[in-house]
Amino acid sequence: MQAVKADSNRNIARARAHSNIAFIKYWGNRDQQLRLPASSSLSMNLADLYTTTEVEWSASAERDSVSIDGVPATGAVLARVQRHLHALRRRFDINQSARVTSRNNFPMGAGLASSAAAFAALTLAATAALRADVTEKELTSLARLGSGSAARSIPAGYVQWHRGDSHESSFAESIAAPEHWQLVDVIALVSRAHKSVGSTRGHASAASSILQEARIRSAGTRLAALKRALLQRDFATLARITEEESNLMHAVMMTSQPPLFYWEPQSLRIMRAVRRWRLEAGIQVCYTLDAGPNVHCICLSEHAAAVADRLGGLLPGIEILQSKVGGGATVLGRESALG
Amino acid sequence: MQAVKADSNRNIARARAHSNIAFIKYWGNRDQQLRLPASSSLSMNLADLYTTTEVEWSASAERDSVSIDGVPATGAVLARVQRHLHALRRRFDINQSARVTSRNNFPMGAGLASSAAAFAALTLAATAALRADVTEKELTSLARLGSGSAARSIPAGYVQWHRGDSHESSFAESIAAPEHWQLVDVIALVSRAHKSVGSTRGHASAASSILQEARIRSAGTRLAALKRALLQRDFATLARITEEESNLMHAVMMTSQPPLFYWEPQSLRIMRAVRRWRLEAGIQVCYTLDAGPNVHCICLSEHAAAVADRLGGLLPGIEILQSKVGGGATVLGRESALG
Repeated sequence: MQAVKADSNRNIARARAHSNIAFIKYWGNRDQQLRLPASSSLSMNLADLYTTTEVEWSASAERDSVSIDGVPATGAVLARVQRHLHALRRRFDINQSARVTSRNNFPMGAGLASSAAAFAALTLAATAALRADVTEKELTSLARLGSGSAARSIPAGYVQWHRGDSHESSFAESIAAPEHWQLVDVIALVSRAHKSVGSTRGHASAASSILQEARIRSAGTRLAALKRALLQRDFATLARITEEESNLMHAVMMTSQPPLFYWEPQSLRIMRAVRRWRLEAGIQVCYTLDAGPNVHCICLSEHAAAVADRLGGLLPGIEILQSKVGGGATVLGRESALG
Repeated sequence: MQAVKADSNRNIARARAHSNIAFIKYWGNRDQQLRLPASSSLSMNLADLYTTTEVEWSASAERDSVSIDGVPATGAVLARVQRHLHALRRRFDINQSARVTSRNNFPMGAGLASSAAAFAALTLAATAALRADVTEKELTSLARLGSGSAARSIPAGYVQWHRGDSHESSFAESIAAPEHWQLVDVIALVSRAHKSVGSTRGHASAASSILQEARIRSAGTRLAALKRALLQRDFATLARITEEESNLMHAVMMTSQPPLFYWEPQSLRIMRAVRRWRLEAGIQVCYTLDAGPNVHCICLSEHAAAVADRLGGLLPGIEILQSKVGGGATVLGRESALG
């Protein structure tokens, strides 16, 4: 996050935030309203997948307007953004409507954490437009209200989101800069389709799995071990825990009532192959999946080309996205630029 | 089980036992040596998948010999059969060697519970050849020593294996005859390959999953509910719990250390389709998988043809086995007939 001086009388600002991919997962809330998570999580930002959002506050506009990728938002999407704008209005004690214009450079709702990037960018742009004096820590808590994992898209590089037990104590912070370790996420886009059960509803169902409690009880141990591996650049340990975490979260999803199956047959095929590549071919790569069918292949940067090659060989024609580890959310400017 | 009168002086007998498919699963042991399971289980016998085994005890033979599907058994397979023969020799206080000849009418080691049918048939043939006076209850406990789920292949129809806490109290019994409900198992043979991690090793790894404890703790509740559904012929409830049980067991497998992935991409494809057929097309069918990639589609007999048709449409060319609910293990005769 960068501080930017006010240079206009209009309450307008643009910000950019990256998507992130979690090694230690967020699945299930202790407090659904405040999005206080059942456990702490840990992720890396994705430099090449981002949302750019412009917010203008206006006393004259009658209501909020929201445009995403050039299309006016309606229904549940609009309502969710408005709820977040209400929370920001309450926090900053204002009574204005907002014009929100947002663009993603990657497909929404397909397990690529589009809501993380979106609500991080929205929160930063909205506060910057107000010239509000907000710490990075508070920004992460505010972003969390819109989408839990958005908290992790505010700080730079590798980020830990502390579970906390209140709005203020549930925040995210960087534990290592992007330069610490050049990991790459090679994403196999199994499907661009919008997922049928969104994360918010999914989080609410997590507790209906008899397995969730055991997963949460042991999450802190896995986070500590993975954090140590990350700080020591110990890929083998990071890979083992990352895959275990993904398997545990999907185990909970598949045993929820009703069960949530985010894996597609091709997802499973890639997961099995990635494990073989690491254990039998020595390629430093592991898999993790969010609430969607796409497979994130986390690897050392020097192995990214080999991973992409092998994915293409395994599933000819499959679409692949690739991203280096990214920085934090940034204010781009205080003039209108997005239409 | 049928009683057969001795009609020869040779200590020889042939018996047949069916494979079975569990609705409430057996995965993990409290006592690995005695194969005392972590939880009780419930299954149906498969009339059309069976093993026929002939046993001849002989004072003159120097050592046990074992032939399976015409091939002399060696290595780990031979050793496992011999361990079981030792247990039977101890129980019946004899000192003879056995000649064992066994034939399966279905592929071994592909998640079709070949060891259940095999050790049930072996146990019954071996005791019948001895003219031993053994109750069905004790036969189930003896079969269990060879392969846990073999206990369930001794009684007829729908069978519950009581977990127990000793050799004697861990036994199986029929809870409903085959005539009670004409369920059919339509098996999609995703792979005939022998599984890479056998069930015995798998059972030993179950406790390494942090999810196993929660699964076991709640297994009794699921068994009681499924048993009630079975006795009331309530297919919707049976389907829901059967799929949940399968998902729970595979969740434990996938989160063991190291993880065990028995699902193939095609298994997942079929699972997802079966669920759709039931919930959207009203076909009374549900899925369950054992420690292998093949998908058992349990359905009402009047829907079996539709299920087989749809499987063929989903995966053209896939091999399908089909079985009605079967009776208990039976002695076929006391003369030599298998070569």
